[in-house]
Amino acid sequence: MRKLYHYWLSPASRQVRLCLSEKSLSFDLILEKPWERRAEFINLNPTGDLPVLVESEGDVIAEVNPICEYLDEVYPDRPLLGRDPITRAEVRRLVGWFNQKFYHEVSVNLLEEKTFKAYYGRGAPSSSALRAGAINLNNHLAYISYLVERRNWLAGDRFSLADICAASHLSSIDYLGDISWDKHPEAKDWYAKIKSRPSFRPLLHEVVPGILPSRHYVNLDF
Amino acid sequence: MRKLYHYWLSPASRQVRLCLSEKSLSFDLILEKPWERRAEFINLNPTGDLPVLVESEGDVIAEVNPICEYLDEVYPDRPLLGRDPITRAEVRRLVGWFNQKFYHEVSVNLLEEKTFKAYYGRGAPSSSALRAGAINLNNHLAYISYLVERRNWLAGDRFSLADICAASHLSSIDYLGDISWDKHPEAKDWYAKIKSRPSFRPLLHEVVPGILPSRHYVNLDF
Repeated sequence: MRKLYHYWLSPASRQVRLCLSEKSLSFDLILEKPWERRAEFINLNPTGDLPVLVESEGDVIAEVNPICEYLDEVYPDRPLLGRDPITRAEVRRLVGWFNQKFYHEVSVNLLEEKTFKAYYGRGAPSSSALRAGAINLNNHLAYISYLVERRNWLAGDRFSLADICAASHLSSIDYLGDISWDKHPEAKDWYAKIKSRPSFRPLLHEVVPGILPSRHYVNLDF
Repeated sequence: MRKLYHYWLSPASRQVRLCLSEKSLSFDLILEKPWERRAEFINLNPTGDLPVLVESEGDVIAEVNPICEYLDEVYPDRPLLGRDPITRAEVRRLVGWFNQKFYHEVSVNLLEEKTFKAYYGRGAPSSSALRAGAINLNNHLAYISYLVERRNWLAGDRFSLADICAASHLSSIDYLGDISWDKHPEAKDWYAKIKSRPSFRPLLHEVVPGILPSRHYVNLDF
């Protein structure tokens, strides 16, 4: 059976879980705590980062971007990157936007400060990081609203990896209750559509030990 | 004519220049100073980052990863990403390694501190950043040596985007003279092979106003 090394609130792990589910590919989840720096895991991915996919035949694919590109190449039935080179360039631009820009401006400041920082033994959250993260989050939600006012989905007419990527990051932050959805109604409508997809359900019903989800996290009508 | 918005020492711009040249695609270079935040440029790429490619028919492709993937899809004659999905996953893993891990651990600490920081009006280089960058650089050169002791090129038997990506980052730092090549003979041999490729020549003969290249920067025998 295909195996995915993941951690619950890791947005990159969530992205691959959603890709696999959207493509109806079955997989076993293996919980990995990257801060433990297990030698066997570092052997699979020298960065020590999640996620890592191990295919049934033993092929190891490490890191979110290579895994999602690989899945779309090898299982093309339901394409997630787009159907022509210009659309794929736009999907990849937005995937980079969320995995790099959003990650450094928002996820590092909110999600990592509130959860992973403690696991890595780096102390309490910094209030200036939390403030910066909250301001940046609002700018990114405004960008999502801007895009979905002009398009059906983030990268164009079709649901794509860009939607999966953005929703993965937002879902981990939404778990912590840090999103004021009412200030961003267009982004909220877009997220509600993604939340109601069958692929999203396992994420919504997962409870991270020691951290209760925000009150509206599970609700499709939030 | 195809246009590439670039800046001399930007590793991401260099990557695309090398890709275009390796594929024998002609292009005009347009110098963009991203710290000026020109409205026309932000219209092409909302992050304000380099590079941006504008195809002859007017299609705009922004950001290094989407551009390189696009070029390999649309001009596949000389593939740079690899010939099968597992090889492509390894190329993409290493491209991510250098564009993200190396970039944040080395390029930000050395290249940005010494050059871009002043352009952005953020003051003098921080000595602790320079120290951290130098230590990290040695670890990355050791990783390159480890890979090329086992393979012809970074990602396997063939020259690929992984080599282009790593060499782009290293070339900007080598311009400043910050690499002790003699400590890393295997990495040095690999870089010497890349330096002697015709695609690399334009980079080697470019002089950035106000910054003289290191003495060995141009030499193929360094």
